[in-house]
Amino acid sequence: MSERFDAVDVIRAKRDHGELSTAEIDWLVDAYTRGFVADEQMSAWAMAVLLNGMSRREIRDLTLAMIASGERMSFADLGKPTVDKHSTGGVGDKITLPLVPLVACFGVAVPQLSGRGLGHTGGTLDKLESISGWRASLSNEELMAQLRDVGGAICAAGAGLAPADKKLYALRDITGTVEAIPLIASSIMSKKIAEGTGSLVLDVKFGAGAFMRDLDKARELARTMVGLGQDAGVATSALLTDMNAPLGRAIGNANEVRESVEVLAGGGPADIVELTLALAREMLRLVGQPDADVEDALKSGRAMDSWRALIRAQDGDPDAPLPHPRETHTVTAQRSGVVARQDALAFGVAAWRLGAGRARQQDPVLHAAGIDLHAQVGDRVSEGDALFTLGTDDPVRFERALEALEGAWDIADIDPGRAAPRRGPLVVERIG
Amino acid sequence: MSERFDAVDVIRAKRDHGELSTAEIDWLVDAYTRGFVADEQMSAWAMAVLLNGMSRREIRDLTLAMIASGERMSFADLGKPTVDKHSTGGVGDKITLPLVPLVACFGVAVPQLSGRGLGHTGGTLDKLESISGWRASLSNEELMAQLRDVGGAICAAGAGLAPADKKLYALRDITGTVEAIPLIASSIMSKKIAEGTGSLVLDVKFGAGAFMRDLDKARELARTMVGLGQDAGVATSALLTDMNAPLGRAIGNANEVRESVEVLAGGGPADIVELTLALAREMLRLVGQPDADVEDALKSGRAMDSWRALIRAQDGDPDAPLPHPRETHTVTAQRSGVVARQDALAFGVAAWRLGAGRARQQDPVLHAAGIDLHAQVGDRVSEGDALFTLGTDDPVRFERALEALEGAWDIADIDPGRAAPRRGPLVVERIG
Repeated sequence: MSERFDAVDVIRAKRDHGELSTAEIDWLVDAYTRGFVADEQMSAWAMAVLLNGMSRREIRDLTLAMIASGERMSFADLGKPTVDKHSTGGVGDKITLPLVPLVACFGVAVPQLSGRGLGHTGGTLDKLESISGWRASLSNEELMAQLRDVGGAICAAGAGLAPADKKLYALRDITGTVEAIPLIASSIMSKKIAEGTGSLVLDVKFGAGAFMRDLDKARELARTMVGLGQDAGVATSALLTDMNAPLGRAIGNANEVRESVEVLAGGGPADIVELTLALAREMLRLVGQPDADVEDALKSGRAMDSWRALIRAQDGDPDAPLPHPRETHTVTAQRSGVVARQDALAFGVAAWRLGAGRARQQDPVLHAAGIDLHAQVGDRVSEGDALFTLGTDDPVRFERALEALEGAWDIADIDPGRAAPRRGPLVVERIG
Repeated sequence: MSERFDAVDVIRAKRDHGELSTAEIDWLVDAYTRGFVADEQMSAWAMAVLLNGMSRREIRDLTLAMIASGERMSFADLGKPTVDKHSTGGVGDKITLPLVPLVACFGVAVPQLSGRGLGHTGGTLDKLESISGWRASLSNEELMAQLRDVGGAICAAGAGLAPADKKLYALRDITGTVEAIPLIASSIMSKKIAEGTGSLVLDVKFGAGAFMRDLDKARELARTMVGLGQDAGVATSALLTDMNAPLGRAIGNANEVRESVEVLAGGGPADIVELTLALAREMLRLVGQPDADVEDALKSGRAMDSWRALIRAQDGDPDAPLPHPRETHTVTAQRSGVVARQDALAFGVAAWRLGAGRARQQDPVLHAAGIDLHAQVGDRVSEGDALFTLGTDDPVRFERALEALEGAWDIADIDPGRAAPRRGPLVVERIG
């Protein structure tokens, strides 16, 4: 049949389980970006994609069309390998902060182009902006210079990368079409491929606090994205990681920076250290350093030096005190036992309601707001022990944050005849 | 779970195969009509409805919500029963023209609120506007007076009926979401119930020239609409009728009026007479006159008198000559045999391209444009006989009209040992 360069025909084709040609997808993305296809047409198409799916070839074409809608960056002139990491978003997920300076210790460039938080998952840039003076925006020249001189950079993605994706993402957000694997995969990968990194590790999360609740869906998303990266010549792999309970003990902004600095100082919660090391090893494996001693880089202080250089290069003061919340509210254990469950989504929503996140793109965040866990899954507690502390500058927020936390954790009996509840492995699978 | 008064939540519920509550549907339709729910949200919802369906209760609630968005009419003060007919749209379907004056002969009021054509199916008002002076707009007072004095009226539906449906219909047209049975059924029935008719006969078409290609879908649509009418206290039934070949020998506007007048004069093509009589009997059955002699009303000239009164009441001149096209092009039989197939959709598209229909709501139509068939399915033809004649005022239109007709008819051998191809029964089923 002849090709369809008409919005209604393209929508109907996808609605009726048809496959769109490369030229049709190119036309659709270009016409939407230019405004010839209307938002109401694109949202109907997105719903049809969500419900009827896309072939691997269609997803690749969609990704390439979104890349072609904007500029492409290149790090070819740097003279060293580049590797990036992308997380699908979690609660307490501050891994980027220790990871980028850690990997940069090994002579590779880590151009981490990040976003801001929306909803219950935090944003890396929001966290770093807790540091006095630190700025998220770098010009292309500044970014290149920093990658050459410091190795790592964490900055805002320029507006010129995949503008079609930006427009489509904003539309999906208000039309119930966020959760489509072809659209999630092409959205993430179009930006990462356009950014020009040579290698990419994806941290694809599953569980209560993740986009993808179940492992099978997360695996499908991971495979789709790894395929897109490899097809585009980017060495790509993915780790499937558990996001049922919050990562680490801090959920917020300034407190997550504080915890990240603890990890860089050789301490910090075991789960954050474990995931940071696993991702660093995977990133270095992709650039040909499978035996890099990442543990030593943490213990020796080299990663901390790299962090301080990164923060200073972006006008931040690594020694400036981080803000603390003006008001706190501590919740204690109602009984003795072992923490058996902490629902990541509930803790994420609570931190968001305390002011750590934003409801609308233009809202500010409260850098001091958040939650500090005093016990994690598997830890023993006695009745009356502090379980966690909510913090905010605005105490009217406590009530709705506590509402979100109702029924969000369990304390189990300690049964000497049975193994105590503990958290399962964080990294459950590697793909690619 | 608690009710969802948020567009994204309502879209996600329908997307995930959930059922919306009455209050949620009321909220959605009201918020959309007032502009609080955006077009891009409503189109994503419509696509989810198209792919995932709605329960009977949801469809009823949607219909009632659309009725509640505007004014309701009432014919209770007329002192006689009211009955209306609605056709889902076909090619050559001018049945309303002879039908309304015919049924009005029996002392009932027939308030036929009609639309204009869009795409390949014609519009009753466009056809009648071929008659010099005839006007489609009647005030409510004029409509009531005409129903009282003349019995039948064919006029434009006022803008006040179901404005939510008007807004949603225009959106569906550009977003590939027209073909959803819950949306088609609620769109038609909200207008018919708001109009205030006491009884209603639906002519639900299936086949090549119909909205619903297959009989099963047409039956589902008919059952859904009959249920909606009955639930709302409107005596409703439906006939499922064949729309594979054009109805009658005229497709266009003025030529369809001419053919209708032939039927009212006691002649005309057999299929038009058959369907007109079947629908008239069904309408009169619903108002308690199952034995009405509709054939006699045609033969005796009473229906013609009723027609002339109707046209005059709306300022038309029933004796004025109807326009003929300035240019014609006749296609002849390439061989001898029996006409075995005439594809209604192709003939509808061809007539539309000749100027009988419109591409955009605001376009005018050419009243003289259209197609006259010289043979129908089952008729014998000899090589070189005229098969059909295209007419338009604008001869550049012939080429694209003829393109639409490529492969649109078959002539079969006459095999004395076998029955000749013939058209099957027009009315295949009654529902309700």
